[in-house]
Amino acid sequence: MGPNCLGLFDTQSRFYATFSTTLDRGFPEQGQLSIISQSGAFGSHLYFVARELGLGVRRWITTGNEADLSVAECLLYLAEDPGTHVILAYAEGVGDGPLLIRALERARELGKPVIFIKVGRSEVGAEAVTSHTAALAGSDAVFDAVLRRCGAWRAHSIEAAMDAAYALSVGELPQGNRVGLVTISGGIGVLMADMAEDLQLEVPPLPAAAQAELKALLPFAGTRNPVDITAQVFNDISLFESNLDVLLRYCQKGAGAPAADHETAVDSAITYLTSAPGAGFLRKPFMEALTRLRTRHPKAPLMLSIQVPEEMRRACEALRLPVFADPGRALAATAAQAHFARQLRRKAAPRQISRPIPPPTGPLGEQQAKAMLSRAGVPLVEERLVHSQEEAIAAFEAFGGGPVVLKLASPDILHKTEIGGVILDCRDAATVARAYELLLSRAAEKAPQAKLDGILLARQLAGGVECILGMEHDPVFGPVIMLGLGGIFVEVLKDVVFSLAPVSEDEAIEMINVLQGAPLLQGARGREPLDIGALARTVAAFSDFAAAAHWAQSAEVNPLLVLPEGVVALDALIVKAQPPS
Amino acid sequence: MGPNCLGLFDTQSRFYATFSTTLDRGFPEQGQLSIISQSGAFGSHLYFVARELGLGVRRWITTGNEADLSVAECLLYLAEDPGTHVILAYAEGVGDGPLLIRALERARELGKPVIFIKVGRSEVGAEAVTSHTAALAGSDAVFDAVLRRCGAWRAHSIEAAMDAAYALSVGELPQGNRVGLVTISGGIGVLMADMAEDLQLEVPPLPAAAQAELKALLPFAGTRNPVDITAQVFNDISLFESNLDVLLRYCQKGAGAPAADHETAVDSAITYLTSAPGAGFLRKPFMEALTRLRTRHPKAPLMLSIQVPEEMRRACEALRLPVFADPGRALAATAAQAHFARQLRRKAAPRQISRPIPPPTGPLGEQQAKAMLSRAGVPLVEERLVHSQEEAIAAFEAFGGGPVVLKLASPDILHKTEIGGVILDCRDAATVARAYELLLSRAAEKAPQAKLDGILLARQLAGGVECILGMEHDPVFGPVIMLGLGGIFVEVLKDVVFSLAPVSEDEAIEMINVLQGAPLLQGARGREPLDIGALARTVAAFSDFAAAAHWAQSAEVNPLLVLPEGVVALDALIVKAQPPS
Repeated sequence: MGPNCLGLFDTQSRFYATFSTTLDRGFPEQGQLSIISQSGAFGSHLYFVARELGLGVRRWITTGNEADLSVAECLLYLAEDPGTHVILAYAEGVGDGPLLIRALERARELGKPVIFIKVGRSEVGAEAVTSHTAALAGSDAVFDAVLRRCGAWRAHSIEAAMDAAYALSVGELPQGNRVGLVTISGGIGVLMADMAEDLQLEVPPLPAAAQAELKALLPFAGTRNPVDITAQVFNDISLFESNLDVLLRYCQKGAGAPAADHETAVDSAITYLTSAPGAGFLRKPFMEALTRLRTRHPKAPLMLSIQVPEEMRRACEALRLPVFADPGRALAATAAQAHFARQLRRKAAPRQISRPIPPPTGPLGEQQAKAMLSRAGVPLVEERLVHSQEEAIAAFEAFGGGPVVLKLASPDILHKTEIGGVILDCRDAATVARAYELLLSRAAEKAPQAKLDGILLARQLAGGVECILGMEHDPVFGPVIMLGLGGIFVEVLKDVVFSLAPVSEDEAIEMINVLQGAPLLQGARGREPLDIGALARTVAAFSDFAAAAHWAQSAEVNPLLVLPEGVVALDALIVKAQPPS
Repeated sequence: MGPNCLGLFDTQSRFYATFSTTLDRGFPEQGQLSIISQSGAFGSHLYFVARELGLGVRRWITTGNEADLSVAECLLYLAEDPGTHVILAYAEGVGDGPLLIRALERARELGKPVIFIKVGRSEVGAEAVTSHTAALAGSDAVFDAVLRRCGAWRAHSIEAAMDAAYALSVGELPQGNRVGLVTISGGIGVLMADMAEDLQLEVPPLPAAAQAELKALLPFAGTRNPVDITAQVFNDISLFESNLDVLLRYCQKGAGAPAADHETAVDSAITYLTSAPGAGFLRKPFMEALTRLRTRHPKAPLMLSIQVPEEMRRACEALRLPVFADPGRALAATAAQAHFARQLRRKAAPRQISRPIPPPTGPLGEQQAKAMLSRAGVPLVEERLVHSQEEAIAAFEAFGGGPVVLKLASPDILHKTEIGGVILDCRDAATVARAYELLLSRAAEKAPQAKLDGILLARQLAGGVECILGMEHDPVFGPVIMLGLGGIFVEVLKDVVFSLAPVSEDEAIEMINVLQGAPLLQGARGREPLDIGALARTVAAFSDFAAAAHWAQSAEVNPLLVLPEGVVALDALIVKAQPPS
């Protein structure tokens, strides 16, 4: 380990090879959480917070400058450690992308949630990473895509990371993101519903039958969800038990439990009860009620938002009921659990090993790039390469008239619009002929050295929505693709999504759905829905190309026009990697 | 108070008129924070958390169903209470908008920060508010605009609210949002820089002179900001003091302090030191160093992110140094302070009492609406009302040709496009004549009952960016205006901003800057910058109209075209309030 690390420890063998001052204030309890951190100080902090939460630790490793062992190697080791059930990882960057992917996929295979803190999201942060260590920080957006693809959960704060680790260690794992809320304060219920929406948790209305049962128990209760059982329950604690019992009967059993015997309404439950259960006269009846509820619903994912003394919290945890003083933090931890509920059920997509595409010989102009992508399965706009005004007019007529666009075709001119090398909207033979001459004279004037293949004449399409599809060879993770909507979505809103290549069509659909502008494709507000299936097929085909063309540094299809039926690439570009100098 | 409340208490007079079980676990300490809550349970929770944070309370009031006293009235009372310095308010909605505004403005006038938790942001949340109480919830977007306008800070979680209350009660108030970070962990420094960006705090590089001083103290320190002084400082605690001393000399003095004697780089500082200062051998030298730093920099806004025992935390607080175990929470509290730094310096905009505009007699068609808004200062597109084909052609020629648009003009037809009542792109006299006839026949067929004023012929403009400007008479807060970019920004991204009417031009500029699509107006990515000044003038003029036309239920200018020079309203609509039936 190291140099520049704080060592490691293992609670099972009681091996403490660290000089972290954190241990001055007490040795760790044994537990199922293992922590792996590139930074010693960050790792110490994570362990300190775990102990404050009363959360036992299994193994704790800091790797420092990684002369030998790296975060990725240790992560793989922890994934395969039978005593580790939850992993918390911190890194500023990794050098070995494929090994990190293998470690994350192995953890998912074995059903172990990985919570990852990766810093350097912001511009100042990324700069600070560079000045702080020699870690190959890589692109943060790509790292993010890797974590998403491999099912890890990225935490943006230490508090969020530790709360998730706590809930995953102590509680039952829900199977989805529908949450039932039972509170003694209508106001807190509304606050929780607001926060649930921010966290993309659903708070669905309870079925009529459930609401009727709740009304029968407490006529003035709010029963929709959030369920407001009011402070009345502290006058009669049996009401707390009976109300929660109704909700838990409509709650999906935890992961691994047999299917429910009737339709379920929620996947987990959170009950908010203020500090009242900690009042002397309530402690005993409250714990008895919880114990009976747990016996009746042994796998129900239930969390408590209460402020109670330490020993009471421990008793709740022994019933596999995580305790959060703050109701918002209970919700955030539930959202993290819901992430893993989705991800751990999911098999790693079988990695298609695409047959390598041999590199082209000579320069790669628009024509060659389009031909390669067309062979790879990217649909291209109908177009002809012409070499005279007569050929141009003939091609125009062969298209059956209609507006066409004329462009310079040269492997030496990559950014045609900058020299006026694209003329739109040619609607008759005379205009086509004039445009042909004009392009030749512009080429002669602005790019006299460029070798001209001719002039490209293409059908000009209207309508649809423009997307951009790109690939880049990331130095750490290899081929990565990017999808975004064109125009202001990319330029102003930076609305793009990354993924490791290749992706399946299903994964492409998920990429599309992440975009802020997705409603435009889906047919928002009376717009015609566009062909998302064709877009997904094209993204998948392009990603196969990205994975197979090892010699490509980058490629771009821009614009890729998505139509009501089909998609059409209007332009394309491939850049070969420079040979090492 | 009440009914359906938990009463109130006052720590100064030791008057405890509450049956909240929260007090079972201890009486409050005296302090400067007052809490006002519509909900008893929510209020109890807030008080409980305050006590857990060791934060003293002045007054605590719950209003319940407000048969007599309301949240707004109590807020005004607390604003004027000399012992109250910070106010924390909770409400689901208020009935008396103007009184709430008066109370918030009074608090700002007296320099008292108001932290507001208003629930019901989400759809489920808003529904739950309605089912929970009879509170007139009103529109959440409007409530949000009121809080922003009056300088209050809206917290979206209890944790965020209480952390802000704690920092505002214990620490010095910074004068801006530039923060200097000093950490013993490079990784935590990067994490903090990432979070600062999320919170819209700046982490500017330190001046070269400051960086040179830091390097002289510790050659391997990271000095840009975040400053990484490494765990080395625990071997020589004087390094902690000397490094922090450099930063504080470049830190703006707190609000109310004399101006700095040289240019400042940051407005506040946060130092992150893990749990190490709590280790036995460090406690005394650390507290001594802090005491000397506070003596040399008596008003510097400095926060500590450390995990230390209770008595040490108290000692730090006595030096006006807030302590947060989690560095992210320290940053979030700093962001709340920065909000008040801006807001409390700001004078309430003198409320222009616009002279009431008398209601129109008869129906309000496009023509009448445009005439009213034009008189109010909204620039309108050049157009003519014509009554024959000949008049139409004459008007077309008077415009000097160019594309024109023809529209049905009738007070009875509000949504013209739905019946094909708008024809675009008429470029010659013959087309204009044909369009005229076509519109008449469509009106005869689709709206035979409608009274026709004639046909409107308007210059058709190209380019620029379309905005939407609207007003609505809110039942709680009165006239409110809304501004958004047109098209997908409103329809897909819901990118709109609200404000109470009237607004000044400066406030209009702030509204514009809040929009996600603002870069389109500012000239993003090589686009021509548009006339934001003219847009702001028009928004202000429209808002004056909104405030003065008491009889209007709603009005809309859509689209309002923003051009490189000037803005032009292309269409307008005003709807009168229905007389009470």
